Formats: sequence, structure tokens, C-alpha cells
Amino acid sequence: MKTITSRDNPLYKELKQLAASSQARRKAGRTLLDGVHLCQGYLTLRGAPVHCIVADSALANPEVLDVVRRCEDLHAHVTALPDPLYNAVSQVDNGIGLMFLVDAPVRAIAGPLTQSAVLLDNLQDPGNVGSILRSAAAAGITQVYCSAGTAFCWSPKVLRAAMGAHFVLEIYENVDLAALVSSATVMVLATSGYATRRLYDVDLRQPVAWLLGHEGQGVADDLLALATHQVVIPHLGQIESLNVAACAAVCFFEQLRQNQA
Amino acid sequence: MKTITSRDNPLYKELKQLAASSQARRKAGRTLLDGVHLCQGYLTLRGAPVHCIVADSALANPEVLDVVRRCEDLHAHVTALPDPLYNAVSQVDNGIGLMFLVDAPVRAIAGPLTQSAVLLDNLQDPGNVGSILRSAAAAGITQVYCSAGTAFCWSPKVLRAAMGAHFVLEIYENVDLAALVSSATVMVLATSGYATRRLYDVDLRQPVAWLLGHEGQGVADDLLALATHQVVIPHLGQIESLNVAACAAVCFFEQLRQNQA
Repeated sequence: MKTITSRDNPLYKELKQLAASSQARRKAGRTLLDGVHLCQGYLTLRGAPVHCIVADSALANPEVLDVVRRCEDLHAHVTALPDPLYNAVSQVDNGIGLMFLVDAPVRAIAGPLTQSAVLLDNLQDPGNVGSILRSAAAAGITQVYCSAGTAFCWSPKVLRAAMGAHFVLEIYENVDLAALVSSATVMVLATSGYATRRLYDVDLRQPVAWLLGHEGQGVADDLLALATHQVVIPHLGQIESLNVAACAAVCFFEQLRQNQA
Repeated sequence: MKTITSRDNPLYKELKQLAASSQARRKAGRTLLDGVHLCQGYLTLRGAPVHCIVADSALANPEVLDVVRRCEDLHAHVTALPDPLYNAVSQVDNGIGLMFLVDAPVRAIAGPLTQSAVLLDNLQDPGNVGSILRSAAAAGITQVYCSAGTAFCWSPKVLRAAMGAHFVLEIYENVDLAALVSSATVMVLATSGYATRRLYDVDLRQPVAWLLGHEGQGVADDLLALATHQVVIPHLGQIESLNVAACAAVCFFEQLRQNQA
């Protein structure tokens, strides 16, 4: 384990940049995982991080120490920081003092859609994106495609909300969704409050690409027109619509229910 | 329409306090609705606000002007503020310049649970609470009971996430959930990742009180023990659980699906 005590250290400067700027994270293709839960998940599902960063005071925590030892066993870099330096890069208030620097994989699309997937068109809210990734992983859907306007999936807020789902998913960003939908060999279902076909009237015992749109405006019209079907989740009452992450969960788990019935 | 130009005006001071402090909102039993959507919803579903507050520049917006006129027709107080004063109390960046001061109803529980309801045990995240209120309203569930540890439902973040659901719901806060569950005449279902009974194996064509718990710890053990059944949403993959708001949506809409089948 190394120790950094200077704010001028190049690694520390990199951490500061990645912590402060979404643009820096996208440009570097790297991000920070903050907290024991995310770091444990990464170790188990993806292996060694680029770098394990630990606050001096956190070395007294058995869970943190276990993660540090697992990193050392994998010959990953481990660096300790004095608490004030650590706290200046952590985005979690009263966090536990452990973070990983990891690569945010940039994937090239290999071919047309042939299995169940989630397509996110211009989703803005990191909490919604994270919740959708978590629901997809829990429902056994592993492919996620995001348009250029969607929140960066490897941002700290999305990572926190997804609770480790990233590590079992294949996430593609900056995707031309119109081209992807046009070439798909699976059914593409777009949710829309204006659709007349009920979700429950579609046979979901087959791969489905779920197309979900912007929180306010929904799926863009040109994309909607390319979907196999538009479906609505029937609802009661005077409330116009569901939150997009709630809508996603209902869709994914209705598919799983039909498949398991 | 009146105009306030002094920061020492008593109404303006009240607005500043309500905007800044959750404690002030709870103590006053009042809150602020920020934005056209929430204000329109309130007017339609609840009627006149205590006070309609509008930024000078927003009076050029036809939607805002329509809301102002509807308030005047209902003989509600309307007050215009210079933009700098308005912006100092608004919690919405680049908002439209319209807010309502409204009462946050404090309800006394009238009797035992006899219809479908949502019970929130110690839910922390305002976005989750808001999303659950929105899903409940959309699924036709109108009663919501919150333990003392749950986020204040009438806080700006919960109001924004719920998108007007508050105005069709009966929300009870600081509720002794153990007493409520013990006296319930309807089935109480608690969701738990450790349950063995599948959600889909329960006949939901009857009133159900849905008991949902803290984001990290779930429903408290003593409450869990009082539930009629603990149920799990079957899932695939290595991800341990769903976000509580996603879980709520799946439960509420499975009940609606069974009722409509």
C-alpha cells in the first residue's frame, strides 16, 4: 500500500478531476465507485480495479480492510490518503472512506438486437437511470443502450442508484437508437400513455427490447413510429402517468412473470 | 393582485422560512408548490391555495396568467414579487416563476384499515416517497400512512417527484404503523427479499395494505412479524433486490392487473 500526502500528486489530481467533472469522466473513460457496497460488487463481478483508494481512518474498518486485502491479493494498486485529502474527492457525505478508480467500459455494438434489452431515449435523471439499470439486472435483462442525450451511466449518482447493476450489464452509450431499432430482430415495445394496446395483452414470452423515453416528453416521435408496438400500463385515477423508472419495473417484471408462469 | 417589494414583509419572511426549512414546514403545517404543473393540479383537484405567488416576469407567460386568473376567480390572495425576491425563495432552478402557498393537511386516523393502502416504514429518500405516491395514485390506491421516520410528504422534493399525486391521496404522517397493522381488517402484505411466497401466488382481488420499508434495511422486524404475509417479487440475476419505489410499482400494478383480469 502506498500513501499520498501531497495534493500535487498526479494520481490525486486525476481523482479530483474525475470526482468533479462528468466531462472528465467521459473523456477519460474512467469513473469512481464510492463506498463498500459498490467496491465489493465490483471485486466479485468484475475483479481488480485500476486503483483502490482508502482513507487512513477507514483502515480500522474490518469490511474496508477485507476489500483492501482482496485488492492486494489481485495485485491491484492500493493507495491510502489522509482523511482531509480523501474527503475532498469523495462525493458521499459521511462515507466509509473507500473508493475504486475503474474503467467505464466503452462498448462497440456488435450487431442487431437479438435478445431482451433496454433502450433509453434521452433520460435525464440519474436516479431514474440507475433505478432502471437495477430493475433490468434483477429481471435478467443484460443489454442496455442509451442515446447521446441520456445521463452518463458511469456517473456517481447513476452508480449509487443502480447498486452494482452495472457490473452484470452490458451498457452501450451514445447509441443511434433509430438505427438500432430499425435493424432489430426482436420485438421493440415502446411505453406511451397514449397507446391503446395494454401491456398485459402482449405475449412477452420472447425477447423484448423495451424503449423508454424522456421523463417529460416520453419517447421521441420518430422512434415511437419505429417500435413494433406501443403499449400502455392500464391505470386508474386522475394521475396522468407513472414515473419512468416505475413504468420500467412494471414492464420488466411483467415479462418475467409471463416467462415464469 | 398585490405586490411585495420589501424583504421585511411578513408574508415574504414566511415564504423564506418555508422554502428553507423542513422543520418550519412541518411546524406551520404549510408548504410551497413550485411550478405550473403542481399549481394547476392543486387548483383542479383541491381548489384555491392559501396564497398564489408569482414572479413579475412570469406574468408574461399565458399558462401562469391563466393560473393567476383562476386564483382571482376563487378570491384567493395573489401576490407578485420582483424576480430577485422570487428567485430567493424558489427551489427550482430556471423555474417558471409561479408557486402556491398551501396547507399541508394533518389528518387524524378515523379507524382501522378497511381498504387498499400504502404503509411506509422509515423511507428516507424523498424521490422514492414521491414516486411511490405517484404510483399509488395511478393504481387507484388512495390511502397512505407514514411512520415518523419517513420523509415529510409535503417537502418540495417529494411534491416534485409525486407530480400532483398528493392532491388525490389521503396522506397520514407520524403514524404508529404497528398499531395500524394490528387493527387492520384487510390483508397486510410486506415485501421482503427473504420471503418465500411469490407476489403472483397471492390473490390480490381484495383490499391490500402494502407495507414497504427503509431503503437499506427493509421493513422493521417487529412490523414484518405483524403482516398477514411476506411476499417476494421473483427475480433473476445476481442483483440482490429492487429499488423500493420500483418494488412498489410492481406490487400495485400486479394488484390492478389481477383486479382487471
